[in-house]
Parts: sequence; structure tokens; C-alpha cells
Amino acid sequence: MIGRLNHVAIAVPDLQAAAAQYRDTLGAHVGPAQDEPDHGVTVVFIELPNTKIELLYPLGDDSPIRGFLDKNPSGGIHHMCFEVANILEARDKLKSEGARVLGNGEPKIGAHGKPVLFLHPKDFNGCLIELEEI
Amino acid sequence: MIGRLNHVAIAVPDLQAAAAQYRDTLGAHVGPAQDEPDHGVTVVFIELPNTKIELLYPLGDDSPIRGFLDKNPSGGIHHMCFEVANILEARDKLKSEGARVLGNGEPKIGAHGKPVLFLHPKDFNGCLIELEEI
Repeated sequence: MIGRLNHVAIAVPDLQAAAAQYRDTLGAHVGPAQDEPDHGVTVVFIELPNTKIELLYPLGDDSPIRGFLDKNPSGGIHHMCFEVANILEARDKLKSEGARVLGNGEPKIGAHGKPVLFLHPKDFNGCLIELEEI
Repeated sequence: MIGRLNHVAIAVPDLQAAAAQYRDTLGAHVGPAQDEPDHGVTVVFIELPNTKIELLYPLGDDSPIRGFLDKNPSGGIHHMCFEVANILEARDKLKSEGARVLGNGEPKIGAHGKPVLFLHPKDFNGCLIELEEI
């Protein structure tokens, strides 16, 4: 069911410093910061040859990553995203096997303009997993 | 400098259950468990179309992931590994820019038989980063 690893998302306490570090110290291709007000984050995409890293920084008062950074002030890996061909089929299969989908269970339009869902970390070895329909 | 994301490593509290979940519930290509006594882990490789997931479980009394699982009993993302063309050049550049290399600073032979180094999470947004020479 799962296909490519679309991205690994890292919550960071200083977006400009993190972007500069990936660009200058690690020598990666780093894009510009993009505000995603619908998702409560400002994002910087780092293009690797085979996948992406997304640096996430809170945007607004209700950012979903604010609590994560409160608990992890240095930052940390927040989630990883797997591509699926059909997100509703994937969701229904996962639910039938007991996995919990976060929120109301309906896909939302993610930061890339595609339908996404998040799965409960307690059901997946402590890892927050995003599924994105590609 | 950094190239492909070689893998994301996930420490898991139950290796057989985690492998079965990736194989049966998430529908991924899951390999057999492999003991890596030199690294203190038993590993299951999950082959995605563009990268790998490595499930890690402690092996032996001095496993480097025992402490992580004590702190994160459900498991969690332990590290991510970037490929580099020349690990000594990468190390020297990183050190010259103030990043700390774990251990004695000399590459070890990793689970794939290639030279690897680990970078201090505090210098990289709370993320443990492995570099592997490819």
C-alpha cells in the first residue's frame, strides 16, 4: 500500500538558522520559507535527490507543532509522510485493522495541495505518519 | 554535500509486531530480521521505492538504542541517514563549522558495510543524523 517516502518533517526552533545550516553546512538544495496559514506552519523544503526534508516552524497561535516544540525545545523529527495511490482505500484498510486516524477521519488538503491524513503515533511505534495521495 | 536520504531508522519495542505491521497493514516490502552484534541491534529493512526504513530493536546488554526505548517505550524515529561521497571530507567540513561528531570522530563500518559517522542531535535541531559514505 505505501509507496515512496514523500518527506520527513522536522520541527525547528529557528527556521532561518536551520535552513542556513542545511544549505551552507550540509550543502543541500534549500527552498524559500513558505507560510501555510491553513496548517499553522511556515515550511522550508529541502530537496534531496530521492525525497524531501520539510523544516516546520509554528505559524499563528494554534500551530499544531507548538506543543511539540514546547516538549522538544531543540526541535526534532515530527513526522514522516508516505505516498499512497488512494487515500480513502488506505484509510479504510487501516481502520479495519484497528489503526486510529487523527481528527475526524476525513482527508484534508495538505501543504502540497494533495489529500492527506495522519495516523495515531501510538499505533505506529511512536511515529506520527502522514499519508498523502499522489 | 549530503546526497540521498539512505534511510530513516525507527526504534521499536516489538520487532516482529512492527515488521508484521509494515508488511501486512502498510503493505510494504519487509525483509528478514538481521542481528548486527557489532552495532547492538537487530534490524529489519523495509524497502520503499525511493529509500529504506530500518526497524531497530536492542541486541545485547549495551545496545545503543536501549536508552532511547526506555525514554520512549512506544518507540520512535531514532535517526535519519544521509549519503555523502567522502565521509572524511564531510566530517572535516562539519567540524570546522562547529558541529560535533559522536564517539572518537573516526568513521566506523555501519550495518551496510560502509563507513558511517553520527552527528550530535543538539547541533541539528534535535535530530540524530548518520552520514554514510556511498
